[in-house]
This record gives sequence, C-alpha cells and structure tokens, in this order.
Amino acid sequence: MKIKSYVCGGWVSGTGRCVTSKNAFTGETVATTSSMESGFDNALAYGRLIAGNKLRQFTLHERAEMLKSLATHLMRKKEDFYQLSYLTGATRSDSWIDVEGGISTLFSYSGMVRRELVNEKFIVEGKVEPLSVNGSFIGQHILMPKMGVSVHINAFNFPVWGMLEKIAPSLLAGMPVIVKPATATCYVAEAVVKEIVASKILPEGCVQLICGGVGDLLDHLTEQDVVTFTGSAKTGKMLRSHDNILSKNIPFNMEADSLNACILAPDVQQDMPEFDAFIKEVHREMITKAGQKCTAIRRVLVPSAMMDCVGDALSKRIQSTLVGDPTNDGVKMGALVNQAQCADVQSAVDQLLFSCDVIHGGWDSMNTIGIDYDKGSFFPPTLLRCDTPLTSQQVHDIEAFGPVSTLMPYDSIEQAIEIVGKGKGSLVSSVFSYDNDNIRTLVYGMACYNGRILVNNRDCMKESTGHGSPLASMVHGGPGRAGGGEELGGIRAVKHYMQRTAIQGSPNTLQAVTNEYVPGADTTTSLQHPFKKYFEELNIGESLTTHRRTVTEADIVNFGCLSGDHFYAHFDETAAADSLFGKRVAHGYFLISAAAGMFVEPAPGPVLANYGLDSLRFIQPVGIGDTIEVSLTVKRKIYKKTKPDDAHPAGVVVWDVKVVNQDNEVVALYDILTLVAYKNAAQ
Amino acid sequence: MKIKSYVCGGWVSGTGRCVTSKNAFTGETVATTSSMESGFDNALAYGRLIAGNKLRQFTLHERAEMLKSLATHLMRKKEDFYQLSYLTGATRSDSWIDVEGGISTLFSYSGMVRRELVNEKFIVEGKVEPLSVNGSFIGQHILMPKMGVSVHINAFNFPVWGMLEKIAPSLLAGMPVIVKPATATCYVAEAVVKEIVASKILPEGCVQLICGGVGDLLDHLTEQDVVTFTGSAKTGKMLRSHDNILSKNIPFNMEADSLNACILAPDVQQDMPEFDAFIKEVHREMITKAGQKCTAIRRVLVPSAMMDCVGDALSKRIQSTLVGDPTNDGVKMGALVNQAQCADVQSAVDQLLFSCDVIHGGWDSMNTIGIDYDKGSFFPPTLLRCDTPLTSQQVHDIEAFGPVSTLMPYDSIEQAIEIVGKGKGSLVSSVFSYDNDNIRTLVYGMACYNGRILVNNRDCMKESTGHGSPLASMVHGGPGRAGGGEELGGIRAVKHYMQRTAIQGSPNTLQAVTNEYVPGADTTTSLQHPFKKYFEELNIGESLTTHRRTVTEADIVNFGCLSGDHFYAHFDETAAADSLFGKRVAHGYFLISAAAGMFVEPAPGPVLANYGLDSLRFIQPVGIGDTIEVSLTVKRKIYKKTKPDDAHPAGVVVWDVKVVNQDNEVVALYDILTLVAYKNAAQ
Repeated sequence: MKIKSYVCGGWVSGTGRCVTSKNAFTGETVATTSSMESGFDNALAYGRLIAGNKLRQFTLHERAEMLKSLATHLMRKKEDFYQLSYLTGATRSDSWIDVEGGISTLFSYSGMVRRELVNEKFIVEGKVEPLSVNGSFIGQHILMPKMGVSVHINAFNFPVWGMLEKIAPSLLAGMPVIVKPATATCYVAEAVVKEIVASKILPEGCVQLICGGVGDLLDHLTEQDVVTFTGSAKTGKMLRSHDNILSKNIPFNMEADSLNACILAPDVQQDMPEFDAFIKEVHREMITKAGQKCTAIRRVLVPSAMMDCVGDALSKRIQSTLVGDPTNDGVKMGALVNQAQCADVQSAVDQLLFSCDVIHGGWDSMNTIGIDYDKGSFFPPTLLRCDTPLTSQQVHDIEAFGPVSTLMPYDSIEQAIEIVGKGKGSLVSSVFSYDNDNIRTLVYGMACYNGRILVNNRDCMKESTGHGSPLASMVHGGPGRAGGGEELGGIRAVKHYMQRTAIQGSPNTLQAVTNEYVPGADTTTSLQHPFKKYFEELNIGESLTTHRRTVTEADIVNFGCLSGDHFYAHFDETAAADSLFGKRVAHGYFLISAAAGMFVEPAPGPVLANYGLDSLRFIQPVGIGDTIEVSLTVKRKIYKKTKPDDAHPAGVVVWDVKVVNQDNEVVALYDILTLVAYKNAAQ
Repeated sequence: MKIKSYVCGGWVSGTGRCVTSKNAFTGETVATTSSMESGFDNALAYGRLIAGNKLRQFTLHERAEMLKSLATHLMRKKEDFYQLSYLTGATRSDSWIDVEGGISTLFSYSGMVRRELVNEKFIVEGKVEPLSVNGSFIGQHILMPKMGVSVHINAFNFPVWGMLEKIAPSLLAGMPVIVKPATATCYVAEAVVKEIVASKILPEGCVQLICGGVGDLLDHLTEQDVVTFTGSAKTGKMLRSHDNILSKNIPFNMEADSLNACILAPDVQQDMPEFDAFIKEVHREMITKAGQKCTAIRRVLVPSAMMDCVGDALSKRIQSTLVGDPTNDGVKMGALVNQAQCADVQSAVDQLLFSCDVIHGGWDSMNTIGIDYDKGSFFPPTLLRCDTPLTSQQVHDIEAFGPVSTLMPYDSIEQAIEIVGKGKGSLVSSVFSYDNDNIRTLVYGMACYNGRILVNNRDCMKESTGHGSPLASMVHGGPGRAGGGEELGGIRAVKHYMQRTAIQGSPNTLQAVTNEYVPGADTTTSLQHPFKKYFEELNIGESLTTHRRTVTEADIVNFGCLSGDHFYAHFDETAAADSLFGKRVAHGYFLISAAAGMFVEPAPGPVLANYGLDSLRFIQPVGIGDTIEVSLTVKRKIYKKTKPDDAHPAGVVVWDVKVVNQDNEVVALYDILTLVAYKNAAQ
C-alpha cells in the first residue's frame, strides 16, 4: 500500500521522506508513507474557510445527526478495518477496542449532544447572572465555535479510536479537523478517512488527513486554531514548545503516556473476589495491545505482606497466556507495532532493572504459537518487582511502553498515596477494595494526581469497563506527566473547541443573543392561548397572564384532605404561628396545581404533555385570602428530529412560570417542560 | 519605604537588585524594593506543606467565611490603601476600582461559594453518568484542590484588585498563594498583605509575597503548582516558555493586554441616547487609570459616515478633561505609573503614527492643573484616526498602554467583525446598538475573538458596569493575543486551582466518595420517621418507604375540580384514548401532592419547610386503579452557618423522591429541598 494524505479535497502522494510500515507478525512490508513537502498552509486555509464555513451553518443537533450517520456507515465497514488492524500486531479483541470502541464514541457523542444541548449553533452555559440592583444589566456565558481548524496529532496504538474520539467533539463544536496519525499505523487511519470521505456525509474538508511528517504546518497556525496531541511526554513537550504555539497562545491539549497505578487495598485478602478481579485486571492490562496503552497499569501497588502471593498469581496467569499470530482466535497477546518499539521497551526494561528484579520475563516459560522472532515484533510479558518504591524514582519515571508492569509494596494507605504521587501525574489509577473507608482515603489522597480513578469490587466487577478504558462521558487526561490535558468527559470536550464568551447587556439583548427567554425581557402576547399553538408557531418570550384566584381556607382544607398532607403549617393554627411562616399557609403543591388549572387549556391541542418541572422555588408563603396570578412564558424551544414511527411528532417547549400575589410579589418560580406537536409533522 | 517580602512566616528584606518607585505626580522616591537572592524553594515548600495542609482541612464554606472576614477587615483599612494608591498616579475614582473593587471580589466569591457549592472539601461536578446496562457501574466527576502553591505574577496597574481577584478563587479552592506584584507598585500590594497577615484570619502561609524579582522560583515548581500571569504579551510568552513549566505541564493561566474594541453599530444616530453613551464610555476608558488598563478600549470602530462627528464629540470631551494631581478631587485623569511607562506609550504612539493621524493630542489644548512635566509621569489623552484599518495591521498589534485610542471606520457589519478579528484575540469588546439584529450579528461574529462582550443601550445604560470592568461572575480573559486564559467567571475560576477527576465504581462507592446519595446505592432505614430527625441526625442514604395509595377516579375528579385543571388527558375519555397516554390518567401534580401526603409528618418537627423542588420528571403515566408508593431518601446535606438573629437555625436537606406503581415501575423522580432544624442551634 502506498499511503496518501487527504488535503484540500484530494488524495495526495507525498514526495518527501519515505517510511515503511511492516506487518508486526510476519515482517512483510504493508505500507509506505511519503511525507508531503508543501501545501500545509493551504490545508489549514481550506479547512478554516471552505469546511469551517459550511460546518458552522449547521446546528449542534444537525452535526450530531451527521456523526450518527457517519458512525453507522463506518460500522458497516468495520471488517475492513479489522483486517488492517491485524497487521499492526493487534488481536481481534485489541482491535475491538480500537475499531468498534472508536466508532461507538461517535454514537455516544452524537447522543449526548442531542440529549444535553439545545438545538442551536452555540451553547448557552450556566445561569443568568444578575449584575445590577434593578436587573436591567445582566450577564450570561455562551460558547461559539472557534474559527480555525483543530489539528490532532495522534499516537500509533489506537489509529481509529484515537482519531475518532477527537474528531467527534471537534466536529460537534463546529471545527473542522486535520488528523496527523502516527506513521507506523497510519494505513489504518487512512482506510477510515477514505470511508469518511467516500460517505459524503460530512461537508467536504471537515476531515483532512496528513500522513507522514507535518512539515511547516505548525508555523501556519493562528489564534483560532487548536492543537491536540497524544503520545510520549518527550514529543509532547517539543510540540508544546513550538514558538508559534507559544506566541499565539494556541490551545494545546496534551495526553501523554503516564505511569498509571493499580492499588490492592489493605482490606483485600486472597480469598476475596476483589483479589481475583485484581489479578485478572493487572494481567489484562499487561497483555491488551501488548501493553501499548497510555492507560496501561505500569505500577502495581500491594500491601507488603501480599507481594509474594500477588507475584505468584500474576506469574501463573502470564505463563498461561498464548502469545503469537494476532489473527489466531486463541491468541491472547499479539505483537508490538514494530521492532523499533520492541527495542524501546527492552531499553526501558534494562533501565528499570537497576532498581527492579524480574518476577516473570523472557520467552522460556511462555506459551507461544508460530512466532518468528526475527520477523515478528514480539516482547514477552514482563513482571518486575521493586521493593524500594519510595526511594527508587526510576519505577515512577521510566515507562516501558509494552507488556511490562512493576509490582511494589506499601506499608500504609498514606504510603500508597505517596507512591502514586511519585508518578507526577497519571491518566488513571485503579483501586481494588471493598472497604468504604479505604476507598475514601485512597480516592481523596490520589485524586490530585489522576484524571480518572476506577474503584473495583464485587458490587460492580461484572459491569466495570476496566482500568484501561477511557469512556466518552468521563474525562480522559491527567495532570503533570500525563500531559495536563483533558479529552472526552462528555460535553466538556466539545467546549474545548469553542470560545467561551461572557455576554453582558439588558435582558432584551441577552434574550436576542441566547434565543432563550430572560426574566425582565419584553414579552409578547397574542389573541390565541399559547397552548393552542403548534411548536413552530410559538415564539421565545411569548407570554400568557392568567386570570386571578383567591386562595381560601376551603382550598387548604380540600387540598389537605385530597392529598393527605396535613402538615401543621397548613392545619395547626397554634403551631403555624410559631413556624417559619408565622401563620397558616397554603400547600406549595396546591399553588402549582392551581397555577396549572389557571393556564391549562382543557381541549385537545398541540400541547401533548407536561412531562417535567425544574427549579421550583417557593419564594413567599401564600396565606388564606391571598390572590394569585400566573405568567407563563415561552422560555426555550428544542427541536427534536421526528422518528418515522412516531405517532405524536413533537418538540420540547420549556415555559417559565411565575406565580405572584395580589401585591405583585413573586410567590413561586419554576420551569415546566412540555411536548408540543409540530404543525408540519415532516419536521 | 523599604519594601519587604513575606515568606516562610516572616518579613524579609531583599539583598539583591534594588528598584526605586517614585511618586507619579511629584517624582519623589516613595519606595525601594530589593530582590530576594535565595529562599524561593523554601517559600514554595512552606506554602505547599505548612499552609496547604492547614487550608485543605477546611471546607469550602469555611474558606468562604474566612474570605468574608478578611474582606471586612480590609475594607476597614481601605483609606490606608487609597493614600498609597494616590502615589501611583491614580485618582480617587481610579483607586476605587482597585481598592474597593478588589475587596468586593472577596465578598463576591465568598457569597458565590456559599450559595452555589456544597459544604465539603471537594466539588462534585455534573451528573451521575450511567456506564453500564444494569447500573452497577457508574461515574461522576469530582474536583479536589491541587497539592501545590499557586504563583500569581501580577501587573502594575491594579496592585490590589489584581492580587485579590486571584487570591479569592485560589484560597477557596484550597491552594495557598505566592503573590509576585509588579515592582513599580508593589508597595500598595505589600500594605494589603501586611493587613492580611496582621489580621491572622487565614492560616499562616496561605498568602506569601515576593517583591522584586522571582529569582529561581519557577525552577522549583512542581506538577501540583499553578502559575497565573497578568501583564504584557511579551513577558507572558517568556514565562510560558519556561522550561520547567513546559516540562511538567504546569497549568499556566495568562491574561495579557489586548487591543480591545468598541463598536458603534450602524443603527445608532447622533440624536440617540446610545450615541452619547458611546462617547462617554470611550472617553471614560481613555482616562480611567490614565488608560493603563488591560481592558481599555484601544480601537474605536464607527460607520464611515460617523467618523467626523465621533471624532469631534470625543475631542470635545477630551479637551474638557482636567488632568493633574490625582489627590485633587476635580482631577479626572491622573499620572501614568512612571516615566518609563510614559516613554513606552510615546514609543507606541510614534509607531502608530505610521498609519494614523492625530485627532487630538499633545498638551496644548488640554486642561491641566499643577503638572510639573519633568517630575510627574503624565501623558496627554491622545485620540488617533486610522482610515485604513483593513490594511494597516499596526493599529491591531501595537498597544499604547496609556490614554490612547484609535478611531477607525467600517462600511458594513461584516467588515466591523473582520476588523475586530484583526486584533487576534481580545479581553473584551463592546457594542453600542439598539437593534437586536445588529446586536446578534455582531455578537455571533465577534464572540470567537473575545472573552467578554458588553452590549450597551438605553435599556441598561444606567446600570451597566461598563466596558472595562471585569466582574467576579463573568469570565475575564480572552483568546490569542489576550493570553488564552480565563480568570473569574464565578466558580469556574475556583476550579482552575483544582484537579478534576473522573471517579468510576459502584453506586455504593460513588456515594461514599461524594457524600451524596446515588440511586442504586444501599440505603438505611431507622425506626424513627426521617422528618422527625434533626439535621445532625440524618445520614446520607437514610430512606423511608411509605404506605401505598390506590389512585381512583374520584381522586382525578376531585383534583381537577380543586385545581381547575380539566385537561382532556384526565377528563375526556374520547380524546385521552388518542393521546400520548392512550387512556385517562391522573394529574402529574396530583401524584406529587399525594406523595407529599404519604411522607409528610403532620406534627411540628425539625423539618421547617419544603422550599423547592428540582428535576421532576414524570416517567410513566398513572391510570385509574394504579397504586403508588413513595421512597424518600436523604440525598445531600448542606450546612448553613446560622446568623445570630435567626429564629429558626436550619440546614438544607435535599431528598431524592421516587414514586413507583404496583409493578415497581418508576412513575416520577424528583428532588425536594427542605430546611431542617439543627439540634444544636449553636452550629
């Protein structure tokens, strides 16, 4: 295969330096990649202008629908990707993480955006902030897409997942991407991008691909671009130090390999299910992707007294691991990506051996099948032991990016936390414990050193996704050594590709900008009751003020009898006098029930259901003889795409409800959520 | 004055390079500052260990109470700070922004934390994330304080505000600070820190002060430290490029001077109130702090046809501005900080003159009082005009950090946006417009270039806090040229000093860690009804399951008649059959009312009031003959400090409410908020 780049709408063969990728098992050449020698500035400009202008025209939900279609398309082609993935040394289950895990991230992000965000081209964040005494000057934060391109410089180990997990939030935010995969496995990324392009689902130019070197790409970045990097701490620092990135304060999100820890808590004994789960997990993390995972467990912390039994149990599992041809279904560990990687791992192990002993290593006692050591890029699963983790810094600094972990003892929970901290920042640590006190102490102590902490025990072990799996809804990244960045973590990741801007002005201005009703803004009324209007016919700020109703003693009595709520503040004259309210008051739930009675239209109409209520606050008590009046205002409209089989196609309308008394004092404030039918059901 | 540093619990005179600060008006020496030559590593270690360990023992609310006390203390001493502030060239109203604005930020942050956050040592962020089919494995994000020190490198222009606005979120987060004020005005910062230390309100070491150079301080930073910088883009880049900061991925938050814009929208005519407000605002931004403000308006964009009338109106205002002795109450513009700053401004103006003409400049037509030009550091308010803003990049790059602004024309809104973007990122831009279409177009187009956008018009001009004022609840910072950082913006700023960690595990684990009830976690029951228990007696996860109640047709009829809600889904057999529910169903509000009737204790007791309800969702309809049952579980407890005059001292208890039907299907989920009395009222 001759690998091409995809820039400015076309597939380009590089003419520069040529790199060969070999089959990790057979050593045969599978791909050659030549670097582009020019045109990087054009690719950036093309992304920013041609693709960006198109992408930003779509709403967040429309972008999410595209991602979903794209994920569906890619899932149909997954077998093609599996075939290429085998060539990188990955087994079927390794590739599942990469291929199906990657495509699933598109589905996850698509769903998240449609569930959690309003269907606009921007995000409104947080609450309206009061900035003045009389409320004529207020503030709110919005996020808009940056006007540039996001450049993703990815690692070799997960060419599909590593690419798609960054593409998803970037495209959702409205930023086109330029993907620069690691050359060693770029042929897998190329195959996926070919399908992305062929599908024609995304606007042209939203995904460009640069295989080989990035030339002078970074020199042409502007303040509106974003760079993300996944890979080694060393390369990360080099990129982060790039003069143009520093000069222009270009956001640089980094996720670097780190020395992740797994802790067996002091409460776990050998006969407990947590012990078995711990052994299985450490072993799984060693052999999955032949240990080439930025989240892999490198440091295995156990109580001093458990060192030997953990060492034995792990050795036994390692010994029974079949290593060899990744296409063989019985094989549990495949090859490393190439022989250079094997040499790197060997070199790291050599350094670790200054302060470690080998518990299990070498090929002698391994279970292998069909390995040609000269042609395949294999490294034997290696378990080391360091008895002096408090004084040997090497085991906390040197990462062997292969099937290598180091067992180390601790004497107290505080010591375990100290040892974890010596890694200077990790992507993830895991804790095996069934004691809440231990869990609390470990989590609170280790949190500052980790982007993620997984706690495993009998309550969740059957469903736990495991130490090494980043998930779309959980932050991936960690402080210090782990790069200091954040990826994934739900909508947070979408926001990394957007600019947060504080907007200040009058309620009318904020309402015009956010397209949400803001208390204090001008409202409109119409002759028709708003509950008789279809989704399309309702305008933000459209308001109804109801008739009035005097709250009587009979109401309180009847409501108490019907609901069964005879709380003293409603029924006990004596106790109510000493209460917070100083007198008998109406039930809060009566007020919102009566309010509904005042604004609901009894006849069938576009409002199909009131399915929820948010942020209800009772501001003032309502006593016998008080008279209430209700204002109902269209606050927010959320278009929902109609599914073909939906008998009641409808969007969500959120209404601001305000109940006042005869002195125009607010007695209750809340939002109600309704489903309102579309007039044109084809929406 | 000989200025000292405050490190490791003592006041230290530096022995290194000595810098003299002069009275900006008289030229007399007011302070000499000698740099420390060693001990920077000790200061960091002292902050991290001695102060950090103490500070992190307090809860967020306790830290907030400290800040409030500190603010009260400093406010009592404000006149001392005003006296020193005059020496920097600032008028009384300039100093009000710095001194009282700074102290107010402490009050604001203290209130925000107590209102918006739970009273724990960590922040629980976002919602519980389902991560498994059966719900045994879930996730949630928490934030814990970083274990280091935050180093704040501040600008000379606002020695008090610039210090306190960063101290507030850092201490609230649980991170001690080391403040490094700009040497030119460090004597003002020193005076404030003296009061902070003398007050003994904060744990010792929480605020350290380094006046003069920072020596090798940055070399000793670790992965758990944080650096913030305010000042010039040039110095910012130098610091951001520091090898130790890059190597360890130390968070570096930068806020740099930027070329902020103010736009007069095309809808504003000379006879509109927006025109006058615009002229006043531009003038005010030119003269406040003699233009030495990172948020000052440097670029004034007006429709081409308005260039002359705006130029005239501004000239007239400038001409009538009394410049001179800052202690004189009639003086509207004081001095620049020193003569070096005057020279810098002159040099920038000289460069700007390559592409600008002078509309108003020099002393000739100015109104001055008592200025000795040789001794005082004065610069005349200078209004420039650039008629080619699309082709002259200098006016978008070169910042004269003094009373200097440039007027420039635009022909269309799109062109105005393009011109704003040429600043490559600003802290703030403002728009004067009374046309929502113009406002929307400008805001959407400019948002990506700005950290804040202020819209001003007749609806808010009386209460607007103005273009140049960062506020505690609004993000301060901007992309690109403005540094790419974020300060303030409410609780967001507190989180900058914390580590966000994704926690994964079983509901029991998450509940133990977050101290909030998580659905699926084990609950406890006790013989006593939980509404009979005082705040202190209630445990997270403590639960009550009520008796059952069959919903009858009589309930629906009675509830409809009492509330007045005769919606067809409850009352019209024919229409209800075609509805979303397919049959007549009970009112949602009846269900939550009946639920209250099932769990409320009628007799007076510790539960004083149900003051609100959140996140109510009706999951399943309840029909005639269905039988409901309610579970009420203690979800979250928020201690509130009791005020001395409070007759009903109480904390907030949030209860998780779940209503199920006879098949144990969930029909409604929500939280209720109650005030629960303290058993020990002295809390």
